[in-house]
Amino acid sequence: MPKEIRLNAFHMNAPGHSWAGLWRHPRDNSVNYKSLDYWVNLAQTAERGLLDGVFLADVFGIYDVYGGNADATRRAAAQSPINDPTLIVPTMAYHTKHVGFGVTSTLTYEHPFQFARRYSTLDHLTGGRAGWNIVTGYLASGARGMGRGDVRTHDDRYDVGEDFLEAAYKLWEGSWEDGAVVHDRAGHTFTRPEKVHAVRHDGPYFKVDGPHLSEPSPQRTPVLYQAGTSGRGRAFAARHSEAIFLNGQSRRIVADAVRDVRTQARSFGRDPYDILFFLGATVIAAPTRAEALDLAAEYARYVDPAGQLALVSGWSGIDFGKYDLDQPITYEKNNSIQSFVENITLKADKPITPRELIAFNQTGARGPFIVGSASEVADELIEWVEDTDVDGFNLVRVVVPETLSNFVDLVVPELQARGRFKTAYREGTLREKLFPGRGPLLHPTHPGAAFRNLARTPHLQEA
Amino acid sequence: MPKEIRLNAFHMNAPGHSWAGLWRHPRDNSVNYKSLDYWVNLAQTAERGLLDGVFLADVFGIYDVYGGNADATRRAAAQSPINDPTLIVPTMAYHTKHVGFGVTSTLTYEHPFQFARRYSTLDHLTGGRAGWNIVTGYLASGARGMGRGDVRTHDDRYDVGEDFLEAAYKLWEGSWEDGAVVHDRAGHTFTRPEKVHAVRHDGPYFKVDGPHLSEPSPQRTPVLYQAGTSGRGRAFAARHSEAIFLNGQSRRIVADAVRDVRTQARSFGRDPYDILFFLGATVIAAPTRAEALDLAAEYARYVDPAGQLALVSGWSGIDFGKYDLDQPITYEKNNSIQSFVENITLKADKPITPRELIAFNQTGARGPFIVGSASEVADELIEWVEDTDVDGFNLVRVVVPETLSNFVDLVVPELQARGRFKTAYREGTLREKLFPGRGPLLHPTHPGAAFRNLARTPHLQEA
Repeated sequence: MPKEIRLNAFHMNAPGHSWAGLWRHPRDNSVNYKSLDYWVNLAQTAERGLLDGVFLADVFGIYDVYGGNADATRRAAAQSPINDPTLIVPTMAYHTKHVGFGVTSTLTYEHPFQFARRYSTLDHLTGGRAGWNIVTGYLASGARGMGRGDVRTHDDRYDVGEDFLEAAYKLWEGSWEDGAVVHDRAGHTFTRPEKVHAVRHDGPYFKVDGPHLSEPSPQRTPVLYQAGTSGRGRAFAARHSEAIFLNGQSRRIVADAVRDVRTQARSFGRDPYDILFFLGATVIAAPTRAEALDLAAEYARYVDPAGQLALVSGWSGIDFGKYDLDQPITYEKNNSIQSFVENITLKADKPITPRELIAFNQTGARGPFIVGSASEVADELIEWVEDTDVDGFNLVRVVVPETLSNFVDLVVPELQARGRFKTAYREGTLREKLFPGRGPLLHPTHPGAAFRNLARTPHLQEA
Repeated sequence: MPKEIRLNAFHMNAPGHSWAGLWRHPRDNSVNYKSLDYWVNLAQTAERGLLDGVFLADVFGIYDVYGGNADATRRAAAQSPINDPTLIVPTMAYHTKHVGFGVTSTLTYEHPFQFARRYSTLDHLTGGRAGWNIVTGYLASGARGMGRGDVRTHDDRYDVGEDFLEAAYKLWEGSWEDGAVVHDRAGHTFTRPEKVHAVRHDGPYFKVDGPHLSEPSPQRTPVLYQAGTSGRGRAFAARHSEAIFLNGQSRRIVADAVRDVRTQARSFGRDPYDILFFLGATVIAAPTRAEALDLAAEYARYVDPAGQLALVSGWSGIDFGKYDLDQPITYEKNNSIQSFVENITLKADKPITPRELIAFNQTGARGPFIVGSASEVADELIEWVEDTDVDGFNLVRVVVPETLSNFVDLVVPELQARGRFKTAYREGTLREKLFPGRGPLLHPTHPGAAFRNLARTPHLQEA
């Protein structure tokens, strides 16, 4: 049986996301991002299409590399203004039953003790549908906002991440034993004290000394997503992630990345297929190819050129405002986001120009750009899966809500007809839906599972 | 016209709150605190009663003073386990139209840059119904959880608070001018760049260098609640708070505290009545006095004695497990929560015993304990208001949902009949409902308002 394709709606708590300027489109309702109706509608559309999840990006800072300021970013609403993504999740969950939520949070600015409670709460309130996209933060403007003069170097950020995750695993997995919460009215016991343990974590970046504040949630550790595909990022992802969001327009590059991470996962004692790969993809579907091309051309007219360059300047750290529009870009390797530049320049095997970066159906956001009828889109998605071994796609937001609605109404039935997409949700938590038949908790080969049995773990100590 | 009484439902994202052990009551549904249905029901009950707000307490740590451990706390579910309070608010707001939300967050463990975005998001999603109860954190277990060996001394905590608030005011009030967000489709301008300013805050505890990430929310700064009534806490509250939650069983002590804070507010150039005082009160109402007494006696049987002492030991820092049940407690002044002990011991003008601390209708949680028919309850509430000059009450949770439902069904109509409670909500944000006719923003005499005009504020600088 062919591999089932996985799908997330890719979104952000902001009026602009991957394509700058689309808020101007007359049928786009992104300006309503401050209203919960907007989010409930998104989640219900995703659930109507049996999508696996709503994947919420975040950026903690503002894109101010292009032209040395944030002017183009502001005008185009290029991921600014931007609100907190966690607060919209519970209401979306309350108005759906199955769809999962991958929520981006930058651990660099959090403390694991407090953070662990927030995500346990999310997992409780969503009935076990919470996922965390682990980001270590890269915008210099975000670091400055938090009063830090410099962004940590690329590798250092992953050291912080390792330390943070270890502390969080101890809290989620090791602090409250199964059976600690008994609600025993006759025995006057809500929680059995001997089954709750203090975590003593004394890491290079974080210290924790105390029991987790929340009782265990359905999944304990939320489903762990990661988005790094640079060298050190891959090792981190291979070790910790259960799902990876990656970008890339070259099938070869994507296939290499997938193979490399799966191989590394095996070296960590994990099954290479215990990681699901979601490739970011822009899909514009319509009943016919001609209609889809018309839609794409119409959408393209709303791309804000300066806003789009502000985004790619922010992602790459390169000020594209310094180049002539048709000047091929030569760049120095940028330590903090090298994967982005590698991806675009390797795409065409030649240096790219700013004009190409802007063009809606050329470089796109950062991944495949697929326009066509349901059948054509399905062909192309299936090809990508077969050529690269990705498991599915993060569907990039273009015009809200119609791009996703069109996908759900047209492409989902086509994929179902071909036996490549589920026809009903499975029961259970997000983790059980992604990895059927294995229960709601981290798989025993996942590093977080090592912190489960506190009494036998020497660096954890009973309270 | 007599003063309108203000009312909040006082709750916590935990199976136990002020009265330990009530989760065992057969009609109590607190064990469902992990479900959003529970919270929607609470908010809708509050709104049915035209209550001003749902006031959500929080405690960041665990009560482990009593007996030197958390055993009694765990068994009685005495504010443990406890989940994040912010995440339940948007769904409550989505299913109501008017009721406000006062959410407790401990600033000691937050950074203003990140925190300001979270509360702006809350204010957006609630349509301007967000309030923040400013807490500086006092549990040693919370500090240890965050890897800090010691709790800051009492006064130092307020220094941190002053610095935090100044940074937050700059972000909320000063970073985005009115009219910055224009959604000008024809002019290709979502946000006018020249109207967004970077905040440069270089305080003793916090540094911020960058613009606020969120666009201005309906109230900009959330309604500011505070709960400190100790010496330094009063000065802090008199300067910053718009509403104060206080405890106290002695009318004299409460009246003194209210008068003192109002006087201090005047010394800061504020109208003394720009601060609303909410007194914590346990109210058990029934159609007749006899039925109410029966209810109270029934509830009292479910109070968990050790759990109750674990709470008061945590609040006071005194291990009441060291005393015989009938031994009058002598104590040393405790710097971190002196107001609590002053309140209880001054109540009866004599040292109190642990047995008195446990007794349901004696010492109570920390405020008036009122049992009776609607008419008797109304009498007593009105007397408290007239004797102490408080503005209203935080209604302490006993059995969920019936204690609040009974209040709404019985006492609210009685207060309305006497002209002491509104018969409809006012329109507008939480701030406009609390301070009618003055608009959604901080009053010009509030210290936060000083950070509004960035260009004229020397320590703020344009981006």
